[in-house]
Order: sequence, then structure tokens, then C-alpha cells
Amino acid sequence: MTKPLLALTLGDPAGVGPEIVAKAWSHPTVHESCRPLVVGHPEVLRSALRLIGSHAQVQPISDPELAEPGLATIPCLRSGNDEVLNIVPGTIDGRAGQAAYDALLAAAQLAIASRISGLVTAPLHKAALWKAGHHYPGHTELLAELCGVSDFAMMLYLGPGEQVRSPAGLAIVHVTLHMALRDVFASLTTEAVLAKTHLVSGIMSGLKGSRPRVGVCALNPHAGEEGLFGDEEDRLILPAVQRARHEGLDVDGPLPADTLIARARDGQFDAVVAMYHDQGHIAIKLLAMHRAVNVTLGLPIVRTSVAHGTAFDLAWQGRAESTGMVEAVRVASELAKRRAAACQS
Amino acid sequence: MTKPLLALTLGDPAGVGPEIVAKAWSHPTVHESCRPLVVGHPEVLRSALRLIGSHAQVQPISDPELAEPGLATIPCLRSGNDEVLNIVPGTIDGRAGQAAYDALLAAAQLAIASRISGLVTAPLHKAALWKAGHHYPGHTELLAELCGVSDFAMMLYLGPGEQVRSPAGLAIVHVTLHMALRDVFASLTTEAVLAKTHLVSGIMSGLKGSRPRVGVCALNPHAGEEGLFGDEEDRLILPAVQRARHEGLDVDGPLPADTLIARARDGQFDAVVAMYHDQGHIAIKLLAMHRAVNVTLGLPIVRTSVAHGTAFDLAWQGRAESTGMVEAVRVASELAKRRAAACQS
Repeated sequence: MTKPLLALTLGDPAGVGPEIVAKAWSHPTVHESCRPLVVGHPEVLRSALRLIGSHAQVQPISDPELAEPGLATIPCLRSGNDEVLNIVPGTIDGRAGQAAYDALLAAAQLAIASRISGLVTAPLHKAALWKAGHHYPGHTELLAELCGVSDFAMMLYLGPGEQVRSPAGLAIVHVTLHMALRDVFASLTTEAVLAKTHLVSGIMSGLKGSRPRVGVCALNPHAGEEGLFGDEEDRLILPAVQRARHEGLDVDGPLPADTLIARARDGQFDAVVAMYHDQGHIAIKLLAMHRAVNVTLGLPIVRTSVAHGTAFDLAWQGRAESTGMVEAVRVASELAKRRAAACQS
Repeated sequence: MTKPLLALTLGDPAGVGPEIVAKAWSHPTVHESCRPLVVGHPEVLRSALRLIGSHAQVQPISDPELAEPGLATIPCLRSGNDEVLNIVPGTIDGRAGQAAYDALLAAAQLAIASRISGLVTAPLHKAALWKAGHHYPGHTELLAELCGVSDFAMMLYLGPGEQVRSPAGLAIVHVTLHMALRDVFASLTTEAVLAKTHLVSGIMSGLKGSRPRVGVCALNPHAGEEGLFGDEEDRLILPAVQRARHEGLDVDGPLPADTLIARARDGQFDAVVAMYHDQGHIAIKLLAMHRAVNVTLGLPIVRTSVAHGTAFDLAWQGRAESTGMVEAVRVASELAKRRAAACQS
């Protein structure tokens, strides 16, 4: 099987994105997994390479089909304009938000057109994105709109390792995501819980090679403690679990989130369905902040990213950790290969 | 300094409480830290000792002053009636809830009267407690009412160790606790955040021996992302942080909960103020479920407990882990000694 061709975007150039892409490029795993190319401004990439002392050469290309990547050669599809060269590192800047948007749009369009096998994105800063006039809560929602899908989800993934006992790794998918906690209640429906359960079960089925065990979080403390602390468990979540089981999935819940996530870490579940952002993110960032991968489910294209943000306090100092970017490339490659195999069979 | 006299309650006798008390008794740390006694039904304690194969003798006493504890002798103040001897392990039973209530009440009254130095409680089951007609969300609220205090808080604590880098350990205090997530918004006030910040800073100041560094969690994902996802950060939490700083505390926030807790684990903070139950509990249970201690702040008495529940699925099988109970006794002893020293100085 040929290696998938993956686009790595530079994200918000005021953040750690360019630097982690530059650092990841020198990691053998990236080149063993895929044929990578970069989407963004070639001068930003060159600055990041200088910052980390890399001698890799940036090779501007006009079409992804022309990419001839290697450890010493970085094919770069230019996106955006030169305004991005004037931004100050570590600041919220609409021009940087626009650059992140341009790179994402270019990469996504190539993936939708099947000219690349998927995209791996560096972090953007939402306030900068909004300053540029693009009112999306994040990458995930923007990509869903570009792809015209409404059933999508953000999944955080940790490969098997010291902190995760399941051989398939641990996935945490979110039913609601980038919204005020106060708004979660209106967005939490049986249909939404069921849809996310199907999405995470489907993707983990591929990564596991057999039926994954899914645990569904409760919304309230102690899973509502027999109805004493809220009724969403019985009213909304349990019906979704029952339907998912009826539809053949291996699902348990609603279970108290604090103990469920600890049990999943210990290998009792391959995937967890979280009800809101922090329920999943607190866990993943404690388990392995730098190694976690963000996977968008429900898209017709493969998309992963690092799970951390732009880290403006660290940006352009050469200290940012690229493990997450390398792992995001590895997971995207794995997903792209499975998708290609499924399409051929 | 004489060792503090501490009461260990048996909790809900249908759960793991009696077993973890019986197991903890054989641990040298318990006897090095304090002079322990048990409050509950002596026959329940004897059954638990038989279960784990312990030869320690239960010695019924009528007053705590008569306790002469040793590895082989367990002084036991009887509470409750014989109905508890008919309960089925692992079930929700009002008689078991009543027994947990009776033991807690007896131990708390002894502590309020300064006849013991503090209490360490085994888990109760809230639904059993409610079945017995005691409508409290948990130990914490019941103790606050018994002591007549309104400014109290539940703190989860992990001593320094492999998972916690701060030499003072890591404390997580909760602004809201045993309530539906939907009800958190009405209970979250600047005054409540400020009060909990003071409580946790005060207790950690004792355990650290210098001014602790406190991090305050945001309520919304990404700390509200510059106002895009909710306004509680600017409206309620930031004013509390500013007032706490003005009052001389070392406080930072509101910070995104997911990254704040990971930073605290790495030693950047001694204490975290969480806005709701799962924000703190997901973290503590991932870090060290069995070693975590629950400390009630704001009471005129010392009270700790294990951080886990009745674990009905494990109860009376001899498999329950007693590390948390041993650690709860150690922390209660430490707090009781500091309190005694403060009262004498």
C-alpha cells in the first residue's frame, strides 16, 4: 500500500504551530507513516526552521501531486498573503487568524477533492479567528461546515502506552464541545448521545479490529445519585445507551464520569462518550497532555490535530513539544490507510 | 505531643466501609499517627475482621476516654441498633443508611464536645441515607449542619508522591458539590468562590508551612475563550480572585480547568479551586483513586474520609483497598495535631 499524502497546516502563526510542524518534520515516524507536505506561508515555515536550527529546505509547490517530501525537503503549498509576516509572536492578531483559516481551507479543499489523503492541523486561536471575521468556535465546527455534515464530533485519542492499558488506545468523544457550560443542557439530546456513540464506536472499531467497549458518562455528579442530583441520566442518556445496545454496540452507562474515566484508563473501556468539553479534556490532559491527538469524527475526510492550543506564552522560543504533532500524523496516517483499504474492498 | 484520639466510623455497613476500617487497623501508619477507635456496631466490625482473617479483638467501650487501642485491640463505641445485622451486602437499605447516620452523629458529637480530636468516616450511600429519612446530599452537608456552619467545603487531597510534585501535596476544593450540574449556575457566586479560596488557602498554609499557591478553575471551556463561551469568568470568578489577592493570598485564575489541573499536578500550584463536583473528582480519581482523601473544610472539628464510595459491587468480598482509609487517618492526625498546637500557642 502506498503511503498516504497528508497536509500539515501551520495553524495560527503567532502560536506554536509553525515550530511544532518544523520539529515534527525531523521525526522518522512522520516519514515512515506518510508522505507529508505543509500548507501555509513558506516564509513562516522558514523562520520556524531557523528558530529550531533545522537545515531542511522549504520547497514551494503549486500542487500537492508535485510533493517529493524527505527529511531534508519540505514541500510547501502556499496559502494566505504576506500580511502574516508582520505579526508579533504570542499575540491575538486577526491577520494570524486569517492565515490559520486560509491554510485550513486550502488543505480541507484538497482533501475533499481527494487530492490528499487527509490533514493534520496545528492549533489556531479562536479569538484571532473571530477577529478575522470567521465566527467558528474552532477547527472542528469549521471543517464540519466545509464538508456539509451535521453529525460530527471531536474525539481525543491516546495511543496505547504507559498511561492507557487498552491495546486499542483510549478515545474520548464529546457530545457537546465549544460552548458555555450553561448552554450544554439545550444541546444534550438522546439523538446527539446516540450519534456520538455510533461515531466513536465506528472509528475505534477500525483502530481495534473488533467491537470496541464504549462507556457513556453521566452529566451529573454520581450519575445523578439515583435521581437525587438531576434527571438527564434517566431522561436523555439511558435511552441512548439502550438504543445503541439494541443496535448491536457494546455500550455501558450512564456511569459517573470520574470513575468511568479512571476505569477506561485501566483498560475496561476503549472509548468514553463525554457530555461536555471539560469532562473529556481534564482527563486527557492529565493522562498525557503532549501526546494526545484530536480526531474529527463524521467528516468525509481524515483530520487530526494536536490536542493543545496555540500556547502563546511558549511561542517562537524553540521550547514547544512536538510529540503531539508526530502522534497526530501517525494516527491520521493510520486512519487514511484504513479508509483507503475500506474503499478498495 | 500526645497522639490525637480519632474516631473511625464504619459508614454504610452494606458497602466496603467495615472492611476498609478492619484492614486499615493492621497498618502501622494508623497507630503511629493517632490513637484510633471505631464507632459503629461491634458485630458488623467483627464480621469484617473475620472476612479479612484478622485476629484483632473488638473491645466494646462506653466512652472514648476508655479507649486503649492497639494492633490487636479495637475499642468500639456502639452506635445504632441490631436491625443492621439483617441487611444484605451490596444493597441500598434504609437500615444501613440509618446505621451510617447513627455512627456519624455519635462521632461528630464527640468531636464537637472535644472528647475526641477528629473523625475519619467510611463511605455512606446517599440513597440509603435518604431511605432512612435523612435528606442530605452527603456527609459534608450533614456535618456542616450538625456544626452549625454555612461556609464549608469539600476538599480532595493527595499527599506528595509519584503523581503529585508539590511537596505540600495537592488539594482540590469544590465551590459547588452535590447538586445537579444544572443547579451549579445559581450557586456560583463571587462570595462562594472567595470563601472556598480562603478555606483551601488556610488549610494548605498549615500543611505547607508557608503561603500556598492557589489556582482557580474557570467554569467554561477555554476559560470562556475571551468571552466567546460564557461570561461567568469575568462576571463572577475574576472578582473573587482579585479580592483574594488584595487580601494577601497567592491566587491565579480563572484558568482553563483542563490545563490548570495538569499544571497543579506538575507542582505549579498547591491547591485548585474547582467550580463543580466532576471538575475536581475526574482529576483526583485519575491521579490516585485509592489514595485520595476527602477533607471537610470550615468545620470546628477535624474530619476526613476516603474519596471513594460504598463500592457495593466489591463489598464484603475481602477485595477492597484500604490505602485511602490509612491515608485519611494520617491526614486527620496531621490536621488534629496542627489544630492542637494552634490552640496551645
